[in-house]
Amino acid sequence: MTKSKRVLLSIILRLLAFGATVAAMVVMVTSHDSAQVLNLTFTAKYSNDPVFKYFVIAEGIASAYSLIVLLITCSQNSLWRLILILDLVIAMLLTSSISAAVAIAHVGKKGNSHAGWLPICGQVPKFCDHVSGALIAGSIAPILYLLIVLSSMHSVITHLFL
Amino acid sequence: MTKSKRVLLSIILRLLAFGATVAAMVVMVTSHDSAQVLNLTFTAKYSNDPVFKYFVIAEGIASAYSLIVLLITCSQNSLWRLILILDLVIAMLLTSSISAAVAIAHVGKKGNSHAGWLPICGQVPKFCDHVSGALIAGSIAPILYLLIVLSSMHSVITHLFL
Repeated sequence: MTKSKRVLLSIILRLLAFGATVAAMVVMVTSHDSAQVLNLTFTAKYSNDPVFKYFVIAEGIASAYSLIVLLITCSQNSLWRLILILDLVIAMLLTSSISAAVAIAHVGKKGNSHAGWLPICGQVPKFCDHVSGALIAGSIAPILYLLIVLSSMHSVITHLFL
Repeated sequence: MTKSKRVLLSIILRLLAFGATVAAMVVMVTSHDSAQVLNLTFTAKYSNDPVFKYFVIAEGIASAYSLIVLLITCSQNSLWRLILILDLVIAMLLTSSISAAVAIAHVGKKGNSHAGWLPICGQVPKFCDHVSGALIAGSIAPILYLLIVLSSMHSVITHLFL
């Protein structure tokens, strides 16, 4: 693969990752639903759970990072070593945030009878649908960052050995 | 850093990662406690939660992988490209499993009043102590794997540019 093709592939992957993280963040932040339980209004929103807040922050950091790197890639490329390390850190941050959010969403959907935690999705289906959408968008981002890291490593190794 | 020092550093990091994942797995599997709630015996064990089962499986895979790579490193080194990719995948797998387990453990400890999920650590403190121990050991492993990947990438880059 020529250098220009590699740069183009990297830009496409970063644009897709940017789209996925922004979509995940927006869909999670706008998730909101309420239900009447025993004459009390029960409101579900992402900020009620620290894990969903962590998810939004991580997606926000990754979105900002993707945008900055896209701008840097278009101008000059001397920071590629730092970018390679940061790509790896962002891949792990995104993996961490999506895994934690999926774990909590699973309890929200299925509950845990052993611990006495009841599912809440029956009461607030709109909230759960939004969260599911955010998790689907959010799960694409770490895969894209894994591909970005593998592509960068491939470039370095190919440059070295071929 | 000479090649022999790099190999030694890699062996030390992999041995530490192996120790951390085995410790995390064993401590999680042996976590067990029971309590009497309203004349009913309530038993807490790791297999009651799918996320803790995933944690044990991920730590088991990482332990087996660390051991295999340690044996391979001692004999020959021609598979280093594959090992570099697998190191990255294992780092992400460990990050994912510890993050999900921490999210559930946090609900177990603090509960979530908005969702009506009560904390359970007051009833089964021994179980929670064991899980905390497993999570501490388990959180060291992805950091060690991140260092292994960075060290391997550093070796490749240094070889290329210095």
